Amino acid sequence: MTFLARLRAAVAERGALCVGIDPHPALLEAWGLPGSDAPALERFGRAVVDASAGRVAVVKPQVALFEAHGAAGFAALERVLADARDAGLLVIADAKRGDIGSTNAGYAAAWLTPGSSLEADALTVSPYLGAGALTGLLETAERSGKAVFALAATSNPEAASLQLARTADGRSVAAAVAAAVAERNARTGAGHGLVIGATIDRARYGLEPDAAMPVLAPGFGAQGARLADLRELFPTDALVLASASRSILQAGEAGLVAAIEAARAELPA
Amino acid sequence: MTFLARLRAAVAERGALCVGIDPHPALLEAWGLPGSDAPALERFGRAVVDASAGRVAVVKPQVALFEAHGAAGFAALERVLADARDAGLLVIADAKRGDIGSTNAGYAAAWLTPGSSLEADALTVSPYLGAGALTGLLETAERSGKAVFALAATSNPEAASLQLARTADGRSVAAAVAAAVAERNARTGAGHGLVIGATIDRARYGLEPDAAMPVLAPGFGAQGARLADLRELFPTDALVLASASRSILQAGEAGLVAAIEAARAELPA
Repeated sequence: MTFLARLRAAVAERGALCVGIDPHPALLEAWGLPGSDAPALERFGRAVVDASAGRVAVVKPQVALFEAHGAAGFAALERVLADARDAGLLVIADAKRGDIGSTNAGYAAAWLTPGSSLEADALTVSPYLGAGALTGLLETAERSGKAVFALAATSNPEAASLQLARTADGRSVAAAVAAAVAERNARTGAGHGLVIGATIDRARYGLEPDAAMPVLAPGFGAQGARLADLRELFPTDALVLASASRSILQAGEAGLVAAIEAARAELPA
Repeated sequence: MTFLARLRAAVAERGALCVGIDPHPALLEAWGLPGSDAPALERFGRAVVDASAGRVAVVKPQVALFEAHGAAGFAALERVLADARDAGLLVIADAKRGDIGSTNAGYAAAWLTPGSSLEADALTVSPYLGAGALTGLLETAERSGKAVFALAATSNPEAASLQLARTADGRSVAAAVAAAVAERNARTGAGHGLVIGATIDRARYGLEPDAAMPVLAPGFGAQGARLADLRELFPTDALVLASASRSILQAGEAGLVAAIEAARAELPA
């Protein structure tokens, strides 16, 4: 079963909300988790998994915030990932990895290989070394119904200059990344996706995601886009995951379920 | 003391060779390290550190190949990094990290903060989200005499299309990254650097590293560039680190010291 088929089934059942697992130091403090150390990360992550189980299709741990704690942080993440798998949640590891091919094999072994301790269903990847450098990683993913989400156009203000730069054939960098992903999907049907900020003017980038290419759209909630506007923001056949983190996580451990239910209710059916 | 000052002193004493710590599965097997598991990684990494100590200025662990083993791989890397610090080696963690600012704080905490378990002297970073998104990471680095090496132009064949794309002001993406790093260095004197492949035609990219901006140049040895040609490849005032991995590591544990000495001898004085 391809990643796209698994994702479609999960979204059909539980909706298009993707809940971030972002243990920012300020959130750990607001949750009253003392020390902001690895046990606090684990408790935070497992609480988000518990509240998400059966309610949403996808969770998205922000790897940098676990990595901040070194090997102990990764051990906490391993337990959170195991919980998420047991709970039937799809997991997108938000790590934005990317290197040359022989090195990407290490990232593929870590995140996209069944039985690995950091196994996820999908991984965000960064294409600065060229979308073609990611081919081996995509192949590894496809062998077990997994996928990648390649960074295309992000809504942070510093990003536009690079992502709108023009390649030799006149496309934007973001559109060139999208074309490489689309070409791969056309050959394999895997359903590799793109990361596109919720508030991006996609026409300016020449970005037109199709039904074979899911979109991970950060920027909902605390970052400004309204979940209720998902259809207006993305009037497309593409499966768009509306990713929200802080707006949900700031509810604290006791308020998580209510915050997730409220976010689900806000999303168009 | 800035990173640049520390790097200059180390290179003046021990030369411009940077030894990669790349525990590729094929190398672990060739070394006769059974299982390719985390203890094998640790033995491999510590052997490279031992052989490098007092002989070279810089070692560069390839983080993806440790990450392949999850938290256990990171625990092995922590011990390799501690060994390298104790041995007085400068360490560039080759992790190619990069995200938006608030997330980059996690990477800065992991790699560029004194006392963290993964503490290094410098970190390779990937600027797909815009060089400006890295500012907080650079600030954290500078507070303790550390630095980043930003990916600019890499020699893998898939990379040129993106890295040569033209920004609105007509520069290449690679040159725009270099300009952002140069501007930061001009203000702080930190000595943040660039990753530029040894065989890159820099004029084509409009890349002209200056004396304030060190260059990490992969591609020596097994990847084709000759260490003896360092001056011809980089006729510049910039401090260029010639990075070699497989050509040294394939000598095996018993042959490491001789391979490192041979590489040092090949480099121009």
